[in-house]
Amino acid sequence: MTGFVSFVGSGPGDPELLTLKAVDRLKRADAVLFDDLSSGPILSHARSGADLVGVGKRAGRPSPKQHHVSRLLVDYAQLDQRVVRLKSGDSGMFGRLEEELVALRAAGIPYEIIPGIPSACAAAAAAGIPLTRRLTARRVQFVTGHDVSGQLPDDLDLKALADPTASTVVFMGKRTFPRLLEALTARGLPADTPAILAESVSTPDQNITRTTIAKLAEQLLSEIGDKPALILYGPFAES
Amino acid sequence: MTGFVSFVGSGPGDPELLTLKAVDRLKRADAVLFDDLSSGPILSHARSGADLVGVGKRAGRPSPKQHHVSRLLVDYAQLDQRVVRLKSGDSGMFGRLEEELVALRAAGIPYEIIPGIPSACAAAAAAGIPLTRRLTARRVQFVTGHDVSGQLPDDLDLKALADPTASTVVFMGKRTFPRLLEALTARGLPADTPAILAESVSTPDQNITRTTIAKLAEQLLSEIGDKPALILYGPFAES
Repeated sequence: MTGFVSFVGSGPGDPELLTLKAVDRLKRADAVLFDDLSSGPILSHARSGADLVGVGKRAGRPSPKQHHVSRLLVDYAQLDQRVVRLKSGDSGMFGRLEEELVALRAAGIPYEIIPGIPSACAAAAAAGIPLTRRLTARRVQFVTGHDVSGQLPDDLDLKALADPTASTVVFMGKRTFPRLLEALTARGLPADTPAILAESVSTPDQNITRTTIAKLAEQLLSEIGDKPALILYGPFAES
Repeated sequence: MTGFVSFVGSGPGDPELLTLKAVDRLKRADAVLFDDLSSGPILSHARSGADLVGVGKRAGRPSPKQHHVSRLLVDYAQLDQRVVRLKSGDSGMFGRLEEELVALRAAGIPYEIIPGIPSACAAAAAAGIPLTRRLTARRVQFVTGHDVSGQLPDDLDLKALADPTASTVVFMGKRTFPRLLEALTARGLPADTPAILAESVSTPDQNITRTTIAKLAEQLLSEIGDKPALILYGPFAES
């Protein structure tokens, strides 16, 4: 059997933020299974004739079940195909990588994991700020803003998230941020803590808004929109 | 004036983990200022004739002062050069980016920030694990293991770092990890929490050791070595 799966982080969306290794694997793939945010120009690196299969999951929309994605990976690999599983951002962050690894191991299929640019890093770069600050933000943390049912996860370490000396990035958290704000301010995080709403990072639709956590929560109560977004907050530098 | 500075994250060390955008900027640079971990084959993308200037800072060794690096950036740009400032990993994480941005803004020099693969993401990929787990590790955090004087920073949020449901990556923390371990276990983190020592990630010298936080601290008390390293701990999956 010669099937092989490369899990490839495609970065935040800008095809120029693909790594050389990602481009190499795309060029040699027989099949590419991609998320919504890994589509478009990123796929132009695949050879003509490769199977391009969208398996995207977007908040609030019906999407293929995870076990179906894992099944597809196994099926392609068992046909002796070279498979690329494109995951937006970094391949190992908030992308259900583990379920797919477990399925491949159970089927005895070899694989590799190639990291990608996390969208959080691209968002900070687009906003013109470093994620860490030497004296005031020595810790950076990334969390998901929703659990499997779309709610704010009830086991979040809210004290850690309310630390005024950390930079925090909330993935997929537009819907739940107003509730998160209440919990954070109740634990002492100042309402005027700098915040950044980073939508469609590194794409032509990119929208970066500098605000505060309180104003952002108010804005998201009245309008969420459908752009994928990150929320960053912390003791950020001017830009 | 046409001087321009591109801050470029060079990724963890493997030249194949450069982004297409990083390679493009290197090819067009008149001068490249690079860290120790951004050297070697990564620099082969620069055109012959470009000035290649090492400004690396390695723990425990004498190195150029930060204000000297900022001064060099400004000087090159004021000579109307296209400058690439290569920073290992991501450009905005633990790399003193802010000081350099401030110097460029003060001098009125335009710049861009291009993100790179954080070494933490490459370390997890090399270890074969995702950094997040859907139910058990919804928060990921990155911290530095030493402050400006080389000690464990005294303002770390130890409770956040002792959270058994987060994945934690400690940058530059080999020397101080035994002390950190004491603080973590005193706050309830089990001594047998899985840990990974990831040295020289993505280079030919890469060494990945799976262990526990207690055993790792013991090992580091007797031998540190001089390889750059990350320490990861948390409720990691098998690999």
